[in-house]
Amino acid sequence: MSIATPAYDALSRAYAQMHRLGHLQSLAEWDQAANMPPQGNEARAAALSEMAALLHRLRTDPRLADDLQRAEQESLSELQRANLREIRRDWARANALPEDLVQRSILASSRCEHAWRAQRQANDWAGFLPNLKAVLAVAREEAQLLGERKGMSPYDAMLDQYEPGMSSANVADVFGQVRQWLPGLVRQVSERQASEPVLQPQGPFAIPAQRQLCEQVMQLLGFNFAGGRLDVSTHPFSGGAPEDVRLTTRFREDDLLDSLFSTIHETGHGRYEQNLPRELLGQPIARARSMAIHESQSLAFEMQLGRHPGFALHLAPLVVQAFGAQPAFEPANLHRLMTRVAPSLIRVEADEVTYPAHVILRFEIERALINGDAEAEDIPAMWDEQMMALLGLDTRGNYRQGPMQDVHWPGGAFGYFPCYSLGAMYAAQWFATLRRKHPDLDQRIAQGDLAVVFDWLRDNIWLQASRWNTDELTRRASGEPLNPAHFRAHLEARYLG
Amino acid sequence: MSIATPAYDALSRAYAQMHRLGHLQSLAEWDQAANMPPQGNEARAAALSEMAALLHRLRTDPRLADDLQRAEQESLSELQRANLREIRRDWARANALPEDLVQRSILASSRCEHAWRAQRQANDWAGFLPNLKAVLAVAREEAQLLGERKGMSPYDAMLDQYEPGMSSANVADVFGQVRQWLPGLVRQVSERQASEPVLQPQGPFAIPAQRQLCEQVMQLLGFNFAGGRLDVSTHPFSGGAPEDVRLTTRFREDDLLDSLFSTIHETGHGRYEQNLPRELLGQPIARARSMAIHESQSLAFEMQLGRHPGFALHLAPLVVQAFGAQPAFEPANLHRLMTRVAPSLIRVEADEVTYPAHVILRFEIERALINGDAEAEDIPAMWDEQMMALLGLDTRGNYRQGPMQDVHWPGGAFGYFPCYSLGAMYAAQWFATLRRKHPDLDQRIAQGDLAVVFDWLRDNIWLQASRWNTDELTRRASGEPLNPAHFRAHLEARYLG
Repeated sequence: MSIATPAYDALSRAYAQMHRLGHLQSLAEWDQAANMPPQGNEARAAALSEMAALLHRLRTDPRLADDLQRAEQESLSELQRANLREIRRDWARANALPEDLVQRSILASSRCEHAWRAQRQANDWAGFLPNLKAVLAVAREEAQLLGERKGMSPYDAMLDQYEPGMSSANVADVFGQVRQWLPGLVRQVSERQASEPVLQPQGPFAIPAQRQLCEQVMQLLGFNFAGGRLDVSTHPFSGGAPEDVRLTTRFREDDLLDSLFSTIHETGHGRYEQNLPRELLGQPIARARSMAIHESQSLAFEMQLGRHPGFALHLAPLVVQAFGAQPAFEPANLHRLMTRVAPSLIRVEADEVTYPAHVILRFEIERALINGDAEAEDIPAMWDEQMMALLGLDTRGNYRQGPMQDVHWPGGAFGYFPCYSLGAMYAAQWFATLRRKHPDLDQRIAQGDLAVVFDWLRDNIWLQASRWNTDELTRRASGEPLNPAHFRAHLEARYLG
Repeated sequence: MSIATPAYDALSRAYAQMHRLGHLQSLAEWDQAANMPPQGNEARAAALSEMAALLHRLRTDPRLADDLQRAEQESLSELQRANLREIRRDWARANALPEDLVQRSILASSRCEHAWRAQRQANDWAGFLPNLKAVLAVAREEAQLLGERKGMSPYDAMLDQYEPGMSSANVADVFGQVRQWLPGLVRQVSERQASEPVLQPQGPFAIPAQRQLCEQVMQLLGFNFAGGRLDVSTHPFSGGAPEDVRLTTRFREDDLLDSLFSTIHETGHGRYEQNLPRELLGQPIARARSMAIHESQSLAFEMQLGRHPGFALHLAPLVVQAFGAQPAFEPANLHRLMTRVAPSLIRVEADEVTYPAHVILRFEIERALINGDAEAEDIPAMWDEQMMALLGLDTRGNYRQGPMQDVHWPGGAFGYFPCYSLGAMYAAQWFATLRRKHPDLDQRIAQGDLAVVFDWLRDNIWLQASRWNTDELTRRASGEPLNPAHFRAHLEARYLG
């Protein structure tokens, strides 16, 4: 029996069309970061802005509003109804923003991000500031409009785009708790590790060999190279489309672990995308649930699995194969290197324990920026103060390793940062669940049975895509809502156990 | 004084928008050939098909027809009037074809081309045939509709897309003359070269060194790497956008000259694109004049300049730097290698003298295919017969080096092949003009003064873009219409002189 659902079908066709056009958009964004020669930027920015405006016109086509209203009355399956919920969410966001704002937003962030690449190298805060102010001005307009529409504060409205259902009060509460115990934990772990001998790997590490090593580790982690690639960009990211995943990393001849763990991180994102439900691709229900859930995959790979002592057993022979044997490449030493805790300046190079400090600081700054409680000029002072308070580090005048280190703000992505630490918390919760289900999990990982991890993630996270809201997904997967206690327990077990 | 030209301005804005969206399309096409993992193809084909349909809708927007009519009455400058002529040509072509045909055409050729990559390697004509038949069927529909609209035979209508103003009768006439003298010339040159000693370079030639050599030669030829790249694909091509030119080549460890001369060829295309008039980019008047004129640039680079004895003097030290000294790398020997004439199977590897035979054969086959005088199944027999008649080579059963060697037919580009040999003729005509203007041209090239060539091409071809029709461009540049005698004279001077 099949009941006609013409309005739902029309919505479904419209979103499939946007998915196809979005493919070209995300490919061009990846290329802009991974391949594009510098003089191509103006034309690329104009092309991406044109496409953003076009997609915006498709999303705000008045027929969609009618279809949405009519589809609510149609006799839909549970899956269709969930898809309709996600369509409505996407539609509501787009219809809160006028086309010229969308286009100005793309133009401002595209220009700022492009100039930032050189300005960051040159520690050129003064050159960067006017571009960032332009990005922030557009982001505030966006946040204001979205907030009015949703009945939220401007920053909550931005956060809601990446992490629907999460409020900044909730984040502030969770992060406030972390602030309580984090400095003490960092101190305890540092004291304990001070007496542990660690051998440093002796470089240089040739980049072609690093690249090959990264690809081998991606293979080990189940990345499908017939449907994706690894390339190089200033800031590692996961882009492309679920059918063609484009991961990037970056290489330094003097550091072997930076490219490797960036790659492992992005591989977590990549596998999520590669394993979204194929038969639903193109529909909003088939998209990744949220950015915190996305980061829970990258951090499940990078932190829970990648820095697991058992995983070092599988990494060590690949590292030796790439660079020859060194005492530093013994699995136990490799594991000590991978779990070394020390306050440091760069978020993406931070260890698992100090990482939340980087996120808390950014959350507090960007919330103030978007809510109008601070200006772009205030960022360096706020940054310096928080880095001293949280990690005891002096960053004055060091913009390159300070507020200019990340692509997010130049790219206009305010409201994203909390997702990293929420993701770390979800990842710890997934592994706590896995450990309840498989009490021998640690031995299995040590024996190379990684499928036990991937199978659970595939069934409980990847294939679920956006079928449930985040809270429901979390409860179904782990039996409880987000519970940050698992994250603290994980850190204490790994670093003080 | 400025007179309002609202209809012209509206057309100009519409074409600028299409140029911006076309940027994403050509980037995705380049990526499909240069980067894309195999499982990405279905989604890519769907995305490109969606974009083609979208651009088609923009080109067939009824408002454009009104604007065109009204713009004809407006007070336009000479440049605006030329742009309007080119807009009308583009518009007429698009409005002859229904959207579903455009979409089916992209889908069929995208699928055929993708499968062809593996089928060609496997010499799998049987696997290739059904895909090619699907592409041909759509191309015939297209040719039929275009022909009816233009009052031309179907094949002439296809040819007219690449080479406006050129008829197949005209091509048949020119090619008929070449058929008269070509086999005799090949024989004479072969006899003469039989007594010349030529040393073969000793490989293997490591691919990273070949790549670096190609990039150095591109530098020597004035390619702007700040606005373009060199990558690898199965079939070398020039893609991307004028603001971001993407050239490809292919590398074989046992052959140094194949990648090098493919690269020199594509560099000619690339410099044309990079030097189109910047201030007009986005408007049809700023596009390259035609495909024969485009090929006249690639062949001016590859044949006239690249295989010039004086150019070997500049190539030799770069080759030695890349691979160490060998007797074969002496300039005189390098020049003999570059001008070796021998009937062979692969068009893109053919020497300058036998090359027209490859084109004549393809022209005759594709004209019959499009006009309905032959079917795809007939291709191998026609190919075998012509290869024997023109070059004395047996190709029976060798599809890989026979009718499956080129990307054009799988990609649906029927009517393109004549442009290569017309391009060779135009290139000879440009150099005959240059030689009249600079009687010391050969010494200047030998001395490394390549600017004498580039400056003339820039002023007379590149910056002229589509301001004049091909005939007018040719007369202005060289003082006469296309005159194939220059091509024959060039071959006789270089190979029998």
